[in-house]
Amino acid sequence: MEKRGTAPDKIDRLEPKVRRGLIVIITGNGKGKTTSALGMALRVCGHDLRVGIIQFMKGDLYAGEWDGVKKMSCDIELFATGKGFCGIQGNPYPWVEHRANAQDAIDLARQKIAAKRYDLLILDEINNALKLKLVDLEQVLEILRDKPPLLHLILTGRDAHPQVIDLADTVSEVREIKHAYRKDIEPQPGVDY
Amino acid sequence: MEKRGTAPDKIDRLEPKVRRGLIVIITGNGKGKTTSALGMALRVCGHDLRVGIIQFMKGDLYAGEWDGVKKMSCDIELFATGKGFCGIQGNPYPWVEHRANAQDAIDLARQKIAAKRYDLLILDEINNALKLKLVDLEQVLEILRDKPPLLHLILTGRDAHPQVIDLADTVSEVREIKHAYRKDIEPQPGVDY
Repeated sequence: MEKRGTAPDKIDRLEPKVRRGLIVIITGNGKGKTTSALGMALRVCGHDLRVGIIQFMKGDLYAGEWDGVKKMSCDIELFATGKGFCGIQGNPYPWVEHRANAQDAIDLARQKIAAKRYDLLILDEINNALKLKLVDLEQVLEILRDKPPLLHLILTGRDAHPQVIDLADTVSEVREIKHAYRKDIEPQPGVDY
Repeated sequence: MEKRGTAPDKIDRLEPKVRRGLIVIITGNGKGKTTSALGMALRVCGHDLRVGIIQFMKGDLYAGEWDGVKKMSCDIELFATGKGFCGIQGNPYPWVEHRANAQDAIDLARQKIAAKRYDLLILDEINNALKLKLVDLEQVLEILRDKPPLLHLILTGRDAHPQVIDLADTVSEVREIKHAYRKDIEPQPGVDY
């Protein structure tokens, strides 16, 4: 980080007396849920902690974060386990295939958690996957209830389930006020994917 | 990125017919505004585009992103230009000093924009800085109106000004549904800073 002339002489550091693994949910219909989780990944790297990203229903359409994480010299892994958004226009894969992929992602999450592989694990779009019944409520609740106390779990996607919200420490709803696509502006690399 | 057995054979790539520099605002009272901007920085790196982050009112309290960006092998710069949040409890600096810092940050943004230094520029907490009169509405509007057409500008912070929102393409409001600090859980590295 570069500092300019007027920056403070002294940098304070927060250091929690009690370390806690948080459950954070980023839901809502606006832009910035996966993006927000990716920002936490960047921060985690800054702290020399270990981060995993398991993406549900993503894997068919290139996303900048796939290469972004490769350019980070820290302990970060990303798994795109899916075949795109289930049920949206143009997606050719049947529900059963999306379900099988999402179940693989759940298994992967369980394995990584059991192995204590990460300090922070992002389950990207899992809220959506639950809404679409690609994963079961009980599967998600079990992951949250049984997580190691110091593991941070970040769950993204629209329509977070109320019982999942109940177990979370921090929940943000990202609401769309405006979106460029409504002005027929195409998704732009870096900003939108 | 690692791919598992059931991932699609074919990765499609979006490629906009028309490239557009977007103005994106992330506002609201919930967790995940700066974080969301940082996630865009990570994506931009994945696309081999250039990103700058100018943080208003930050610089006195260590944040993981300061080291996070150093660990990214891409064209990324971060400037923490401030001395913490103006007016909050425990911040010892007078308003005039915060104002001077924020004016430096505005100058820096103008220089970088004029030099076409970035593809995406994040003006972190500028909405707050405007609300606190550390920068002037006209200064912000001028940056937005005069920006190069292909430059993406991301503005974060609570209380985005309606006239700034008017000029934006995409606006998300991050609403707090829950926050760990209300349960007296201290800020945790990686998640909160």
